[in-house]
Amino acid sequence: MEYKVKDINLAESGKLNIEWAERSMPVLRMLREKFSKEKPFSGITIGACLHVTKETAALVRTLKAGGAEVYLAASNPLSTQDDVAAALALEGIHVFAWRGESESEYFWAIEKVIEASPNIVLDDGADLHATIHEKHKDLAEEIIGGTEETTTGVIRLKAMENEGTLIYPIIAVNNSYTKYLFDNRYGTGQSTIDGILRATNVLLASKTVVVAGYGWCSRGIAMRARGMGARVIVTEVNPIRALEAYMDGFQVMKMEEAAKLGDIFITSTGNINVIGPEHFKLMKDGAILANAGHFNVEINVKVLYEMAKGKRKIRPNLVEYDLGDKKLYLIGEGRLVNLVAAEGHPSEVMDMSFSNQAMAAKYLLENGKSLERKVYKIPDEIDEEIARMKLKALGIEIDEMTEEQRRYVNSWRL
Amino acid sequence: MEYKVKDINLAESGKLNIEWAERSMPVLRMLREKFSKEKPFSGITIGACLHVTKETAALVRTLKAGGAEVYLAASNPLSTQDDVAAALALEGIHVFAWRGESESEYFWAIEKVIEASPNIVLDDGADLHATIHEKHKDLAEEIIGGTEETTTGVIRLKAMENEGTLIYPIIAVNNSYTKYLFDNRYGTGQSTIDGILRATNVLLASKTVVVAGYGWCSRGIAMRARGMGARVIVTEVNPIRALEAYMDGFQVMKMEEAAKLGDIFITSTGNINVIGPEHFKLMKDGAILANAGHFNVEINVKVLYEMAKGKRKIRPNLVEYDLGDKKLYLIGEGRLVNLVAAEGHPSEVMDMSFSNQAMAAKYLLENGKSLERKVYKIPDEIDEEIARMKLKALGIEIDEMTEEQRRYVNSWRL
Amino acid sequence: MEYKVKDINLAESGKLNIEWAERSMPVLRMLREKFSKEKPFSGITIGACLHVTKETAALVRTLKAGGAEVYLAASNPLSTQDDVAAALALEGIHVFAWRGESESEYFWAIEKVIEASPNIVLDDGADLHATIHEKHKDLAEEIIGGTEETTTGVIRLKAMENEGTLIYPIIAVNNSYTKYLFDNRYGTGQSTIDGILRATNVLLASKTVVVAGYGWCSRGIAMRARGMGARVIVTEVNPIRALEAYMDGFQVMKMEEAAKLGDIFITSTGNINVIGPEHFKLMKDGAILANAGHFNVEINVKVLYEMAKGKRKIRPNLVEYDLGDKKLYLIGEGRLVNLVAAEGHPSEVMDMSFSNQAMAAKYLLENGKSLERKVYKIPDEIDEEIARMKLKALGIEIDEMTEEQRRYVNSWRL
Amino acid sequence: MEYKVKDINLAESGKLNIEWAERSMPVLRMLREKFSKEKPFSGITIGACLHVTKETAALVRTLKAGGAEVYLAASNPLSTQDDVAAALALEGIHVFAWRGESESEYFWAIEKVIEASPNIVLDDGADLHATIHEKHKDLAEEIIGGTEETTTGVIRLKAMENEGTLIYPIIAVNNSYTKYLFDNRYGTGQSTIDGILRATNVLLASKTVVVAGYGWCSRGIAMRARGMGARVIVTEVNPIRALEAYMDGFQVMKMEEAAKLGDIFITSTGNINVIGPEHFKLMKDGAILANAGHFNVEINVKVLYEMAKGKRKIRPNLVEYDLGDKKLYLIGEGRLVNLVAAEGHPSEVMDMSFSNQAMAAKYLLENGKSLERKVYKIPDEIDEEIARMKLKALGIEIDEMTEEQRRYVNSWRL
Repeated sequence: MEYKVKDINLAESGKLNIEWAERSMPVLRMLREKFSKEKPFSGITIGACLHVTKETAALVRTLKAGGAEVYLAASNPLSTQDDVAAALALEGIHVFAWRGESESEYFWAIEKVIEASPNIVLDDGADLHATIHEKHKDLAEEIIGGTEETTTGVIRLKAMENEGTLIYPIIAVNNSYTKYLFDNRYGTGQSTIDGILRATNVLLASKTVVVAGYGWCSRGIAMRARGMGARVIVTEVNPIRALEAYMDGFQVMKMEEAAKLGDIFITSTGNINVIGPEHFKLMKDGAILANAGHFNVEINVKVLYEMAKGKRKIRPNLVEYDLGDKKLYLIGEGRLVNLVAAEGHPSEVMDMSFSNQAMAAKYLLENGKSLERKVYKIPDEIDEEIARMKLKALGIEIDEMTEEQRRYVNSWRL
Repeated sequence: MEYKVKDINLAESGKLNIEWAERSMPVLRMLREKFSKEKPFSGITIGACLHVTKETAALVRTLKAGGAEVYLAASNPLSTQDDVAAALALEGIHVFAWRGESESEYFWAIEKVIEASPNIVLDDGADLHATIHEKHKDLAEEIIGGTEETTTGVIRLKAMENEGTLIYPIIAVNNSYTKYLFDNRYGTGQSTIDGILRATNVLLASKTVVVAGYGWCSRGIAMRARGMGARVIVTEVNPIRALEAYMDGFQVMKMEEAAKLGDIFITSTGNINVIGPEHFKLMKDGAILANAGHFNVEINVKVLYEMAKGKRKIRPNLVEYDLGDKKLYLIGEGRLVNLVAAEGHPSEVMDMSFSNQAMAAKYLLENGKSLERKVYKIPDEIDEEIARMKLKALGIEIDEMTEEQRRYVNSWRL
Repeated sequence: MEYKVKDINLAESGKLNIEWAERSMPVLRMLREKFSKEKPFSGITIGACLHVTKETAALVRTLKAGGAEVYLAASNPLSTQDDVAAALALEGIHVFAWRGESESEYFWAIEKVIEASPNIVLDDGADLHATIHEKHKDLAEEIIGGTEETTTGVIRLKAMENEGTLIYPIIAVNNSYTKYLFDNRYGTGQSTIDGILRATNVLLASKTVVVAGYGWCSRGIAMRARGMGARVIVTEVNPIRALEAYMDGFQVMKMEEAAKLGDIFITSTGNINVIGPEHFKLMKDGAILANAGHFNVEINVKVLYEMAKGKRKIRPNLVEYDLGDKKLYLIGEGRLVNLVAAEGHPSEVMDMSFSNQAMAAKYLLENGKSLERKVYKIPDEIDEEIARMKLKALGIEIDEMTEEQRRYVNSWRL
Repeated sequence: MEYKVKDINLAESGKLNIEWAERSMPVLRMLREKFSKEKPFSGITIGACLHVTKETAALVRTLKAGGAEVYLAASNPLSTQDDVAAALALEGIHVFAWRGESESEYFWAIEKVIEASPNIVLDDGADLHATIHEKHKDLAEEIIGGTEETTTGVIRLKAMENEGTLIYPIIAVNNSYTKYLFDNRYGTGQSTIDGILRATNVLLASKTVVVAGYGWCSRGIAMRARGMGARVIVTEVNPIRALEAYMDGFQVMKMEEAAKLGDIFITSTGNINVIGPEHFKLMKDGAILANAGHFNVEINVKVLYEMAKGKRKIRPNLVEYDLGDKKLYLIGEGRLVNLVAAEGHPSEVMDMSFSNQAMAAKYLLENGKSLERKVYKIPDEIDEEIARMKLKALGIEIDEMTEEQRRYVNSWRL
């Protein structure tokens, strides 16, 4: 069994954490039970590039239970939970991930997954897909299809589709309702707050929190920051989303105005250099910077470093940049604050996200051959089925339309 | 000039109300200025079936300023603001509407609009479209196209499209982002609360409010009911929306469970008999019933009347039904509570909704011939343009993507 | 039977409104039942100066059921519900109140109450107490004691106590927990919003609402304005309350700063000239002004009138002041917005406030002779008893401390 | 220099943490500057029993800067931040505290503080005061007075006052407005949520959180749990507080009912056995238990242990109790969840709480001799002064009453 983790002796702690997560992942547990019997992935190799957390463990264990051989790399150099990685390695998952990978180690691990010549490729951020497309097009024939977990990754894959360079079909798991309406909003909202609190322990009540973006993730963050008593300012480039933020009672302005007012800045746009030198200059002494977007490019950390006269680590995941006239505080090197400084999304939402991943893998297996080299949403029936399973697991019963009602909504006559 | 209103002497009050509304409708005012110069609707007859409110007045005055001859009927027998109707009549709008129309008067007014042989047909709920399609197919040639304001109406028109019976293209104004994200949520949310308060003056804090549905309108209602301190229970037939309501912190259950718990019931589903005899039986003494959906079919008022031993009008828009073991209170005959018991959506959101109507009419004029007999969304550029105009009117500046950022979101490479 | 009301023919509507209110006032109903049997007020004349609303009707009917002869004047020239006044007159309450009293009529009505030589004096704002103390000290011997409903009135009466001029004991009903924690917060919060909506129909979502004060009433207003989606700015003179508002996530600043930012201004401070000419000058075109404090002195209406080039009534309870460079809109002449433009506090909270009034009257009767000429809070046992009755009426059961727990909270040893 | 800490080598981390905290404690910093010059505590020994956190460090460093000799024990066996303790020891504070003290070590440390024969005694929970009163009454003559930080401690000290056993005057710091309105609400609210997230990483959105108590701490918890999307149930023994919780939109019921519904239970009552065996029996599988009250007696942990068939540590600060038919999860041994599983209150609120401590110590020094052996609130002027300093540090300017306004609120005449 080949693997590379920080310390295999952490496995016991990892095992307990996985068990803890799985308690709150009933849909995935139901799928696992089903897969265990049916073994849909027998003979199939699945390559995955995902945040190696206790919830991801629940997913890859489900795939393995379904018969798959699973290879797993981390989708972020700082997001791996080393105890979970160790536990997975012991269970026979080919995991190549540890917290604190260098850039080259990060891509080495991705190459290890590619080496296994996967039939199905699961990704979070599309670095694995991009690497295959840039360097390993020859593998295309083995690959039935891929999935993608994030908004950011889907944008990249759509760009590939538009360019005509996509070499296998993709299920955009992110675009499932049971994914982005829940994971992106309630997951990112809570886990981002969690990461900021663990890293700084500052009071959120009365703080001015600037949230860059008002997509599904960022509106989750704005909602929870307000829920903790903060005053929230939103910046956006999309006029419709800007208006939504405004009507939701948030102040909306350009970043160059917000920069002067914020106590805490949180980026979640999927774009580059959303906060840069022109903003650092305007910020108040003591401002705190965090990123909740997939890549560490939203805050221009490189320029921040260049502008600084000095840099000190204050606490775990908190570094002070001394700009002479003021000090700025960066959380987790500008990488995903919820995964670096906390534990990522709670299990309850990952249950749905990863049930989509598991179902997407199965769907690809069954339908991949007939799909074009495009980005697809998972079929609505599967999306709804996951919602129904979740409701059932929660003990929630909902109304069914009566026959009369079905007829009514399908008629138009006076 | 032909018209029929309650009392033409109310015109002065109507004029002031329209002026008051237009203060908060800057986008529509900008369009009017433009239309006044360009006269795009010269020679065009527009037939409209809309709630005759001060905001609708701002729309039809804009169309008239653009050169149109406008015929207007009410889209609900109880929603007409008689002073506004009078003011419009004096200004040369052919208005056939008064509060308290009978069923036959309601359709008489619609027929008056049809008589004018309109070239463009604006509708709210699709009764005008349906009447044309059922009884006046011969007019099809004159009609360039139509628009529809509501979720309910769009569902009916989609049914027609699916059936293949649509005789002219439709712009589903409801489906504009600058419409349903704002009007349906913030508009319905506030105006429904407003209607309930005017009709009952009950304390909302601590009350258990049951909201039937978790679409855009109903989630606005749930949000505002909570904002007033109520505990909200949501019922839904769609499992994904049910989960959303649940994750938003609301209780979710079947109506037959909610019926026992609610102090106030608000339907907003677009469906029929959402609350019926089986629920009335379970309700608490004193429960209040209101409907915020387009048609008065969501609460089974007919059966309520049959079940009752007696019926008393308690206050304006509030009727007591004595069921023997308990009394239930119905607001506004089960018709749109926000229009019957209050004044409909605030001008600020109707500014966007009706700018979509005005732009849709212009778009039909310019492109109608090339459209199929289908239901279309307004083009995204127009939708965004309305958002930009609104932001500008509000004095809100937002960020623009830099060239670097544009490149970034369109690239996928490592 | 002497009385003076607008139109005795409105009595039927008033009767239904009173019945509707009493449905939601179970504690007062329980007290009435008790008083009906015990007749504690036999031979007693009660003089009252209260807002003549359907809820006040429930109170005076309770006192009358207890044997009292009741004389009632309005505590505000614009707050009387004429139908309720008519219904009370028919039931034998000596009511002297109509909506739209002039200043002299207002005090004439108060004198009518004093003429009856009351034994117990109930007041709301302390104009009746002040009139007795200024002009009718000779009545002191007949007066067992008085009560006061409002923060404003209690402040005046405390000033009298401090001066040593109080001629009979006062129960500050306002200071009961079951009064100010509920009526002032949830009552004023909702009814102020209600009044503003009825007068203006503006969208609250995204509006900047400036609330002057952060006492119990004003924090209720701030809470509900936020609940409707507004962004709220608070002004205060008390540093501790200012900090509370700030930590509650509101912006806090001087009125001279807030004046530039507000779309809607609501005063609720109990003080004079909180908004004056220096602020009118800074305001935006279209700003809306409302007062929720007891007296119409918080907004300097006189100066606003002097500054204006013109004045127009736009809608019921809404007047436009044209200052040349801008127009400002004043609701309800700067008088209590919730009573002038809506119906005052909902019955559910007045149930507790007026149960305090009823219990205070009874307490004065039984203990007045032994009280000093001071301002008292109602005894805590009575306050708690009202809370327990309310909980019972609501069907809420709460825990009781166990014997062990009682001992624990009274011990200090290790 | 005598001290006892876990590891003196942790001092560097502690120093950085203290520096980080002090950034957000401007009022205490201002006091320190003043004290450094004036040396009010020269020759004075201060004994303190406080949670040894970075914020407490800021307080004791301020007292030392003012000339005091400071002895410090922990007020909870699990709340000490060992790196902070080390840093303080190096700075010359006599600290006797480490995380994980046994019961006897805990009291040993308290005795070490008493041995120093303090002149002023600062306490959090009143164990130091109680120990002096039970075992070291002879020290009374040396002691000018004491302070107490918590609601729980003040209740104990009031019991002593009522018994007549208090041997020195106490300033109830907890009862300062600038303490309990902020620290108890916003501090406990946030830090309790923080502790629960760090210990469990569960999703709060949609969870049913049962909060025992609706005092200042517990309402902070309820507010923040709701802010994170939870549905909150409150239990109370006080009917007025129960009604407040109900009007705030929470469900209110007995614990025996709530026990069946809760996903997470948080006690914050100051009482004993609020959750006991009768409730454990009713709970759902997987329920999580946390205590935010001062002492570890609110959840009956001893009985939980006896009822359990097995006990496993799942994660840091999270232990599973296997009751056979279900598993319950206890955070931090039932001790203060915010200090055991997180870092205690944020610095921003402790700034005010500990400025009260510092000012109370100074006040005792100057006025202690003239005080009776009673529990006092700090004088309102000092309380307000702290609020003014905090506002100033935050850059917030507030209105001042005009002369006219001052006169107005002190007059009562018509």
